[in-house]
Amino acid sequence: MTTHLEREIREQPDVAARLLDRLLPQVADLRAHLTSRGAEQVYLVARGSSDNAARYAQYLWPVRAGVTVTLATPSLATVYGVPPDLRRQAVVAVSQSGRSPDVVAVVEQARDAGRPTLAVTNDPASPLAEAADVVVDLGAGAERSVAATKTYTSSLLALAVLGVALGDAAGGDDLRKVPDALAAAVTGTTGTEESAAVLQRADRAVAVGRGLNLATAHETALKVTELTGTLVVPWSPADLMHGPVAAVGPHVPALLVVPDEPATASVLDAEPELRRRGAPVVLLGRDGPELPGWLSPVTAIVPGQLLAWRLAELRGVDVDHPGDLSKVTLTR
Amino acid sequence: MTTHLEREIREQPDVAARLLDRLLPQVADLRAHLTSRGAEQVYLVARGSSDNAARYAQYLWPVRAGVTVTLATPSLATVYGVPPDLRRQAVVAVSQSGRSPDVVAVVEQARDAGRPTLAVTNDPASPLAEAADVVVDLGAGAERSVAATKTYTSSLLALAVLGVALGDAAGGDDLRKVPDALAAAVTGTTGTEESAAVLQRADRAVAVGRGLNLATAHETALKVTELTGTLVVPWSPADLMHGPVAAVGPHVPALLVVPDEPATASVLDAEPELRRRGAPVVLLGRDGPELPGWLSPVTAIVPGQLLAWRLAELRGVDVDHPGDLSKVTLTR
Repeated sequence: MTTHLEREIREQPDVAARLLDRLLPQVADLRAHLTSRGAEQVYLVARGSSDNAARYAQYLWPVRAGVTVTLATPSLATVYGVPPDLRRQAVVAVSQSGRSPDVVAVVEQARDAGRPTLAVTNDPASPLAEAADVVVDLGAGAERSVAATKTYTSSLLALAVLGVALGDAAGGDDLRKVPDALAAAVTGTTGTEESAAVLQRADRAVAVGRGLNLATAHETALKVTELTGTLVVPWSPADLMHGPVAAVGPHVPALLVVPDEPATASVLDAEPELRRRGAPVVLLGRDGPELPGWLSPVTAIVPGQLLAWRLAELRGVDVDHPGDLSKVTLTR
Repeated sequence: MTTHLEREIREQPDVAARLLDRLLPQVADLRAHLTSRGAEQVYLVARGSSDNAARYAQYLWPVRAGVTVTLATPSLATVYGVPPDLRRQAVVAVSQSGRSPDVVAVVEQARDAGRPTLAVTNDPASPLAEAADVVVDLGAGAERSVAATKTYTSSLLALAVLGVALGDAAGGDDLRKVPDALAAAVTGTTGTEESAAVLQRADRAVAVGRGLNLATAHETALKVTELTGTLVVPWSPADLMHGPVAAVGPHVPALLVVPDEPATASVLDAEPELRRRGAPVVLLGRDGPELPGWLSPVTAIVPGQLLAWRLAELRGVDVDHPGDLSKVTLTR
């Protein structure tokens, strides 16, 4: 029987194509909104997988559009009752469900303060969509698996289009290559079986990525952890090698996210020391499709999705309902 | 034989007292510098334990001083060659060694762009100190253990004093209570033996904290991981319960950071579900000394330091040289 998870992984190229068709013609309007009312920076608010997508924009928008991005700490608003100072900022919120109360709270505060707000969500009728001035509807269709896949890659794409809107004039043509690249990635299962075999013997692991693909390391760690029960810790190579590497060894595999882009060299620099400590090493995203490096996170996550799915199967997990999880982050 | 680690943990109250005596009289000068050249926000750059200290300021300065804080992504500068847009910002760098090349690079770029820069470091002769306009010398004395302890708590304190400088006029009196509170914390070993016994059977664990004490969860996880080889993953309760909780169970203890401050309620909200899954639960920072909540991270880390130290002893680790680690993060 086909699971929701499998179907949703396979849908990613079509979801991407539809999103780009709808969103690219809106770039001028999106730009006007994100730079309205004197906004010159972006305050980015998200939770869970959407927060991993936000990590991509945290690198992408400065690199490609020269825009300073501040990742929100939503509990400032909900725990400490302190609205952030948003004088210079537009607020972009990312939430597939549109129902994370603390994400909604930040957008409501920004709107009340008269700042431009934009919601990236898969539910245009959600509280988040109602709170924001402008809504980017992912249009990914219902995501029934608890583990986000198609809403993650489509969130990355939406954030890439917003990067074009914010100033990356040259990005539009590259974006058109994404659906074909995703189609190649979701059918390219090279290495999945071997990677799953390595992880099957492990109850813990580390995932290493840097720069644009620090997001990919975080999201790979999250997929494997929530779908399989193997606890995976994401690190940048600098932070891993400075201390936590002491916990890496023969029973602790290392997943290295290594697509063809500038930050990958320093991820690979960590490989000899990880091997010296006896850690099994899995390289993810190395044989990726022909996309420019700045878009590599959109396809580099796919091997991690396939690995998590296969490992869950090997362990007999009900992948659509792993570990009694609920779909919406309801933390206030 | 007394280890460097033990000695340095014990030194923390004296280091704190000396730092406050030196730094509190400079508050007006620090304020003038951090708000010079039109600066109205802070761009905060750090790595490793210092990055955990920076997480504290990420909450503290907005809550107590109304200042927006952006955590830097140093690889923007060193990997992608993109200097951040710092028009509105003062730059504060935290590095005990003052020798992390990517932290130094960000400060050099900021200085070249004419922005105000300030370095918090334990080495006033380091490259970082040379690059910055103003240096806050932690004056903690040489830290010989690879695991940072006294430089972590003194970095937190330095950042708290900078918070006073940035606008938290009422904070100075509370800060004077810190040395006594730290003295109580480093001698109060209640619970350490029991906590270490719980962790001794585990090769992995999670640490949970929120808001001001998300920093404490990250630093507790780092201390235990680097000193003992047990892999500990830090989470906010929202992000843990949304997915990774699937990997928590009887063999995966949960360390909850629960000092008396507003974010603790939602950390404790996670406890029943963690127990339902069979996870052994350890509460850290609950019986802390009488400090106001906004300073709780300075003492709430101490039970984690004591736990990591005791667990390392039980495992026969050479705590001053665990896992062949080096002291400086040399990633570019």
